[in-house]
Amino acid sequence: MKTDVTESRSWQKLLKLAETPYDLVAPGALEEDGRIGSMICHSAGLRLFYAAQRVDKKVLEAFQEFVDEHRLVERFKEMRRGAVINKIFGWESEDRQVLHTSSRDIFASEPKDPVSARQANEELQKLQTFLSEVDRQGKFTTMVNVGIGGSDLGPRAIYEALKAYNREGRKVHFIANVDPDDAAQVLDTVDPAKTLVTVVSKSGSTLETRTNEELVRSRFESAGLDPARHFVAVTGKGSPMDNPQNYLSSFYMYDYIGGRYSVTSMVGCVSLGFALGAEGLTDFLKGAAEMDEACETNQVADNMALLLALLGIWNHNFLGCPTLAVLPYSQALHRFPAHLQQCDMESNGKSITVDGRPVSIKTGPVVWGEPGTNGQHAFYQLLHQGTEIVPAEFVGFLDSQYGKDISVDGTNSQQKLLANMMAQVVALATGREHENPNKRFGGNRPSSLIIGRKLDPRNMGRLLALYEAKIVFQGFSWNINSFDQEGVQLGKVLAGRFLEHMKSNKKCGTSIEEQFLEALEN
Amino acid sequence: MKTDVTESRSWQKLLKLAETPYDLVAPGALEEDGRIGSMICHSAGLRLFYAAQRVDKKVLEAFQEFVDEHRLVERFKEMRRGAVINKIFGWESEDRQVLHTSSRDIFASEPKDPVSARQANEELQKLQTFLSEVDRQGKFTTMVNVGIGGSDLGPRAIYEALKAYNREGRKVHFIANVDPDDAAQVLDTVDPAKTLVTVVSKSGSTLETRTNEELVRSRFESAGLDPARHFVAVTGKGSPMDNPQNYLSSFYMYDYIGGRYSVTSMVGCVSLGFALGAEGLTDFLKGAAEMDEACETNQVADNMALLLALLGIWNHNFLGCPTLAVLPYSQALHRFPAHLQQCDMESNGKSITVDGRPVSIKTGPVVWGEPGTNGQHAFYQLLHQGTEIVPAEFVGFLDSQYGKDISVDGTNSQQKLLANMMAQVVALATGREHENPNKRFGGNRPSSLIIGRKLDPRNMGRLLALYEAKIVFQGFSWNINSFDQEGVQLGKVLAGRFLEHMKSNKKCGTSIEEQFLEALEN
Repeated sequence: MKTDVTESRSWQKLLKLAETPYDLVAPGALEEDGRIGSMICHSAGLRLFYAAQRVDKKVLEAFQEFVDEHRLVERFKEMRRGAVINKIFGWESEDRQVLHTSSRDIFASEPKDPVSARQANEELQKLQTFLSEVDRQGKFTTMVNVGIGGSDLGPRAIYEALKAYNREGRKVHFIANVDPDDAAQVLDTVDPAKTLVTVVSKSGSTLETRTNEELVRSRFESAGLDPARHFVAVTGKGSPMDNPQNYLSSFYMYDYIGGRYSVTSMVGCVSLGFALGAEGLTDFLKGAAEMDEACETNQVADNMALLLALLGIWNHNFLGCPTLAVLPYSQALHRFPAHLQQCDMESNGKSITVDGRPVSIKTGPVVWGEPGTNGQHAFYQLLHQGTEIVPAEFVGFLDSQYGKDISVDGTNSQQKLLANMMAQVVALATGREHENPNKRFGGNRPSSLIIGRKLDPRNMGRLLALYEAKIVFQGFSWNINSFDQEGVQLGKVLAGRFLEHMKSNKKCGTSIEEQFLEALEN
Repeated sequence: MKTDVTESRSWQKLLKLAETPYDLVAPGALEEDGRIGSMICHSAGLRLFYAAQRVDKKVLEAFQEFVDEHRLVERFKEMRRGAVINKIFGWESEDRQVLHTSSRDIFASEPKDPVSARQANEELQKLQTFLSEVDRQGKFTTMVNVGIGGSDLGPRAIYEALKAYNREGRKVHFIANVDPDDAAQVLDTVDPAKTLVTVVSKSGSTLETRTNEELVRSRFESAGLDPARHFVAVTGKGSPMDNPQNYLSSFYMYDYIGGRYSVTSMVGCVSLGFALGAEGLTDFLKGAAEMDEACETNQVADNMALLLALLGIWNHNFLGCPTLAVLPYSQALHRFPAHLQQCDMESNGKSITVDGRPVSIKTGPVVWGEPGTNGQHAFYQLLHQGTEIVPAEFVGFLDSQYGKDISVDGTNSQQKLLANMMAQVVALATGREHENPNKRFGGNRPSSLIIGRKLDPRNMGRLLALYEAKIVFQGFSWNINSFDQEGVQLGKVLAGRFLEHMKSNKKCGTSIEEQFLEALEN
């Protein structure tokens, strides 16, 4: 671990190969030798089509050498078995295990890390009991989730994705922003008497969540309701929120699961369990567990998360593309790119190695995206003809969720959706010559295509775990710590200073805060 | 126009200045000489704070020289007065005027382009009459907007932003995606009897919109309702949709307004007028008109759109930053970055100049973003400590929309929101030294801050027009055509091929389409 990754043999080999990346615009390049049908990776029921990446057999072999040289799969296995890898060697750091995979390691007879898996099971049992009681009472139709960052985006993205599987009449709303209009808008639409409020904060002291909890509590009180009969806590043991008498029920989260990886812990399970019911929740967790297992495969060609990670590194570090677009062809996944943006950029937006030395290469890219086909009518212009090459990961499903479709011009909407997605892969890769320069497409813009049968709870779990593992594999590759987030601290400290100045209302000074506040008022 | 912009005197001067950009991490650099209070640009009631950009007086002077040398303001004026600038000289192209500003040029006694302004007025009058009739009948509470791209994202973003100003009981839903689940989910939540459906397509032949119109019509028919009494058309004259007997009412859009610039035309006005009422809609248009006027100011320091455009070019072309984050500290603006992403990337994601020659520089950046404070708990880690420098544009307001706030720890939520936003500007700019390398912040990450009093219809109009003009000024600077979108065509052609193959169901061939389809099914 002490050597610079760029000095490793396999990295050097990839550097050499990157001088002549596979040329997708050469005649026949995309389809020759059955390339499309043979460059498919299967993991846990999902398939990854990667013929439209700028790689060939030699690059794939070098990927495998890289995987082996840097022990990527071994390190993933160590992570699942409780190694303390949230750590900067030689410096004060979080020094924690990384065990989000344990929160779904509840189906195997021998879990990888028995202690954390037992804790996950205990909380899940408590949740099942709680949800049964909610069902029995039949009083609550709505849940409001109060949390931010990892306690908001992941659960929200998955809830949106699986709405089609909601139990009849159940709804979940989310309040995250300290912007008071966020809470105002949600609270205007719910009936407090029928509403559970789940407050999610590991530390129990997150500024936004604490403020919003107070705001929502005061609304319940003005409505003559006792918050303790409506509020549910998800927090760390011993946190200021760990006070069961204030809550109808309390669930625990542990410091070995980072916020952005916490969807399958109680952070996501409470709201998803309420929406989907116990069975749907179990399917979701099962899907994630299946993908975790598939990530222990050592062959890069058979390990989708690992392959996706290396294709990303190839495009980012070797072909020089600074961003990654994730483009689901599924409206239900409309918030999934935002969740990945968080999970990826907070994990891998780092500048030092696990040894505390400055990195010598680019780490995590900017990750962004919106659903297709919508995006085709929006930003795809730049993907096709802009000066920035944007690698893309398309995600699609053979079947729709609702099955309510219509045939127009001889094909149904689901077929149109898939046809458009595949067409984009081809157009980006092959480009098009034209005598009119404005109708020319340069091509050689790489993309992958992830395909599942249908976006149901199980496939959602698989897809989530796929991306979590991809991010972890990339962090291992760059030799950084993907599990802390020191970069968010300075903003918190400075916000505190601004708030102190606002309270004291001093504005004649020369400090940065006073200059800003004075200018703001004028 | 025939010379390469990089060869111009002012560009060369900027190149020279970019060798030593203003150093924001030097002691006192952000606050010295009253920098924060003096680097503020005022336009149409909004303010732009740009002390945290890596520019000094010399750079601003060079900006002005660039503006003058390339006649940026003159060209903006020519645009508003009807010049045919949607054009590639010497090649077949759209050859159209660019007159989105006319759609709000309805308050001045002498509109800049009388013909298009008259047409805008006519449609607005028709809309007012229609909305009055809807009010009188009192039958409709809901509108479903069917459109995609420019006919969806802009109206949706503004509708979301101004929900607080909705007329009592009014709601608008949006269906865009050809994904049949998109329509299914919306249709499950509305009562057709109380619902108007506005179908928006300039060509009247957009695949997604046509398909979704059919799908929604069939639902109305199964509910025993006559679509012609519920459906409203917004389309171009003579399009296949220009068939008033199929619609309760029809409104026109013209080919001199591109989709992504069409929010203030009938494309946005029908749904926004329904939601906000005539007065709110007028305020929104008035705000946009005010900003358009302010964009004709020749001094870069007093022309916010122009300044924003040049700061963007400085960061993108001279300091080498490939992306731009737009970060509203207002939950209501949660879809505004997606609209800007469309408007900016579809406009400026180009590789040839207006003369049809390949550009020699980078054109439009990747534009992305999510609301703060949410983002602080998500991707801001990368903004602060990642290897990619991401310039940011913060957008905030002094007052909340609903005014429903709570004081916690001595400050209210709106204050916390503003404190956090300003703290981010400072943290990104100044960074922080620390002996622990993981707690170090490199700083020199540039950002701007756009401030308004309150996010009301008028300020929303100003903000929208600000960004539209910024994008136009950048396109002028790069000497590209920001108004066509040839890059979306190839995907359409190839999707058609896939659909043909799906219909014929041939799968044993060797074409790209057949290989894909065969692989998909296995």
